[in-house]
Amino acid sequence: MKNIIVQKFGGTSVADTEKIKNVAKAVIREKALGNDVIVVVSAMGHTTDYLIKMAKEISDSPSSREMDMLLSTGEGVSIALLAMALQAQGCPAVSMNAVQVGIMTEKVHSKARIIDIKTDKIKSHLAKGEVVVVAGFQGVTDDLEITTLGRGGSDTSAVALAGALHAKRCDIYTDVEGVYTTDPRTVPHASRLDEISYIEMLELARVGANVLHPRAVETAKQYNVPVRVRSTFKLDNLGTLIIGVDEMELHRPVTGVASDLSQARVVVCDVKDNPGTAAILFNSLAKENISVDMIIQSYARKALNTNDIAFTVEKGDIDKTLEIIQKVKDRIECSNVFVDNKIAKVSIVGAGMIDRPGIAATMFKTLADLGINIKMISTSEIKISCIVAEDQADEAVKGLHRVFHLDCEEVAEVNGDLPDV
Amino acid sequence: MKNIIVQKFGGTSVADTEKIKNVAKAVIREKALGNDVIVVVSAMGHTTDYLIKMAKEISDSPSSREMDMLLSTGEGVSIALLAMALQAQGCPAVSMNAVQVGIMTEKVHSKARIIDIKTDKIKSHLAKGEVVVVAGFQGVTDDLEITTLGRGGSDTSAVALAGALHAKRCDIYTDVEGVYTTDPRTVPHASRLDEISYIEMLELARVGANVLHPRAVETAKQYNVPVRVRSTFKLDNLGTLIIGVDEMELHRPVTGVASDLSQARVVVCDVKDNPGTAAILFNSLAKENISVDMIIQSYARKALNTNDIAFTVEKGDIDKTLEIIQKVKDRIECSNVFVDNKIAKVSIVGAGMIDRPGIAATMFKTLADLGINIKMISTSEIKISCIVAEDQADEAVKGLHRVFHLDCEEVAEVNGDLPDV
Repeated sequence: MKNIIVQKFGGTSVADTEKIKNVAKAVIREKALGNDVIVVVSAMGHTTDYLIKMAKEISDSPSSREMDMLLSTGEGVSIALLAMALQAQGCPAVSMNAVQVGIMTEKVHSKARIIDIKTDKIKSHLAKGEVVVVAGFQGVTDDLEITTLGRGGSDTSAVALAGALHAKRCDIYTDVEGVYTTDPRTVPHASRLDEISYIEMLELARVGANVLHPRAVETAKQYNVPVRVRSTFKLDNLGTLIIGVDEMELHRPVTGVASDLSQARVVVCDVKDNPGTAAILFNSLAKENISVDMIIQSYARKALNTNDIAFTVEKGDIDKTLEIIQKVKDRIECSNVFVDNKIAKVSIVGAGMIDRPGIAATMFKTLADLGINIKMISTSEIKISCIVAEDQADEAVKGLHRVFHLDCEEVAEVNGDLPDV
Repeated sequence: MKNIIVQKFGGTSVADTEKIKNVAKAVIREKALGNDVIVVVSAMGHTTDYLIKMAKEISDSPSSREMDMLLSTGEGVSIALLAMALQAQGCPAVSMNAVQVGIMTEKVHSKARIIDIKTDKIKSHLAKGEVVVVAGFQGVTDDLEITTLGRGGSDTSAVALAGALHAKRCDIYTDVEGVYTTDPRTVPHASRLDEISYIEMLELARVGANVLHPRAVETAKQYNVPVRVRSTFKLDNLGTLIIGVDEMELHRPVTGVASDLSQARVVVCDVKDNPGTAAILFNSLAKENISVDMIIQSYARKALNTNDIAFTVEKGDIDKTLEIIQKVKDRIECSNVFVDNKIAKVSIVGAGMIDRPGIAATMFKTLADLGINIKMISTSEIKISCIVAEDQADEAVKGLHRVFHLDCEEVAEVNGDLPDV
């Protein structure tokens, strides 16, 4: 039996008919290597924006069911055109939408989760030597309601299909050349990683590396599907392979550095140090669907029996957060509330830091040497994050990138090969 | 139980978001009369042309399966937007594509015929007080392949739905105000008919009245569904009601006059007058999918044991027809073959002519008085067609329209009401 490769091309890669013909070439190239190929595509370029624009002209608040019906047409167009392009180049191909494949989701519109993927029809097409072109981003419920998967949906479709079909690999073609040690716009010496583990990728995605949506990464981790992020426009470049941490050949202590400017810090002062006080505050926030990222509680001031609670939320949630604090103010008995909008979260991520002490100390010393004050710290097994002043974020990222030997030339020495930048 | 009305709006009626909002008003107006309403819509304005253009950019001969997949997305957009527009105007509504409804067709792409329509889901939505917005033109096979119904497909969808759901009426909204006694562009005094029977409509459609596709009319006749053709832009105008011939209140001898310039005449001379000669000729044409319209065989010339066979085919089929005749020439033993491209078929149609003798004679005398030579004649129970020279077609239509009292004022006298022209 042949190996199955799932390829995913985003909206930019299929933005017009010329680009679709090029995608067909990349598909045929993969098939020529002796693989069975499934291609997942998004809607063409600005189609989704155009459809949303029309919906807004008609209704201020279009129902999510009808939005899903509307948006799902976008992939219907791109799968049919790509199948035609493949056939025109002599490659047998068939397009399938989510209903035809059976990409079963929960009955939630605009952000459904995949429950199950039927594989029998796809397999029978593959057995006939056909490339199967599948609509990404969409799903269907038991009673034939059309759903969409929300942000990063097509990536998730591709990875889930790869999992369900025990594919050898899922290739995510995109307009970047892979996953970088940090944002190349901030650090020109950022280097492309040859490999990264799912957990590192998850941490990097959460702190602002937009290459692959965390849901897609989690799905890949769940099914243990190797995912390659690579450039649509430079097919010879192998990009970055995302795999299980156990399968990685080399662990550097730090894999990547990222900064996230989307958060604001809230400090609630002099909160009564009673059991349950924090629970009241964070339950109230959770009820209103406000995601809290970092939480730091100071040591209690014994004499006053109070402490300070600091946490970060999305900047857009600040007004709502302050309203909620106002409502629970009497119950948590706080004094002042401070908001700091001008912060950045700078993080270092690396599965290799688990067994290596001193990484955190190196990070703090590096920031101190640069005269950067740390406002909050949080750590996980493979990540250390520091909140610093917004205008010092780039400097912090550059310093950490250099200290942890991620700059391009140094990575090249480690790998014995000069990576493309 | 409420009456069900099926409304159908074509591409021009839903060409942009403003027009879709207006369609929503027409739907709500029908529902306000106390009816359950199902709306069938086509793709928006030039969407289909745009999709075809992209397909042609990709492939000279895109497969019909992928074309169906591509084109079916057009109605997906319009049904979702119309459902949103209805909801925005306070009317509960739900969109359904062919898969969701279960508009089952044979497995033939680009011109499938409807086999069955499931009604349970539509009924349950209607029972909840919702308007059901259904995608026209498309169908689905048992194994979830997407099909399209070909020309006039949305009209056929609407009429078939009306039949399956025992609707009280199917309203076809279009950019004309109804069915006219003849083409108003040829005869300014053409009058709109209040009623016309299915069989008359079929005959008129076949001879060039493009208001409603014959397949839709046949479907209406089969299910005995009253169909009203009416203007999207003049909602107070009741248009033309197409009903069974038995239900019509008044039969004029002639209901309409039409001319058809699409045919050419072929005369095969001196064919051997043996049994089976005509069969050889017309079987050969049928095998190559060439539709023959009128066929006239002259009286056999006893002395020579030959006769002439004249028939008409679509002008575009002439070359192929001549090739086929060349192939069977020896078997039918003909001498010369003549082609006449400059002809027109002028027809009068009317269920009322069945019991009234002299209609044909009046037609022939009218043409003779105008100095118009008749080249071929064919008749059915409710139609008489004459082939005349192409450049005399308009004069023939005007003369017949006048003689059979179809000009606007005279019709007005008969009905006691002045129709809109």
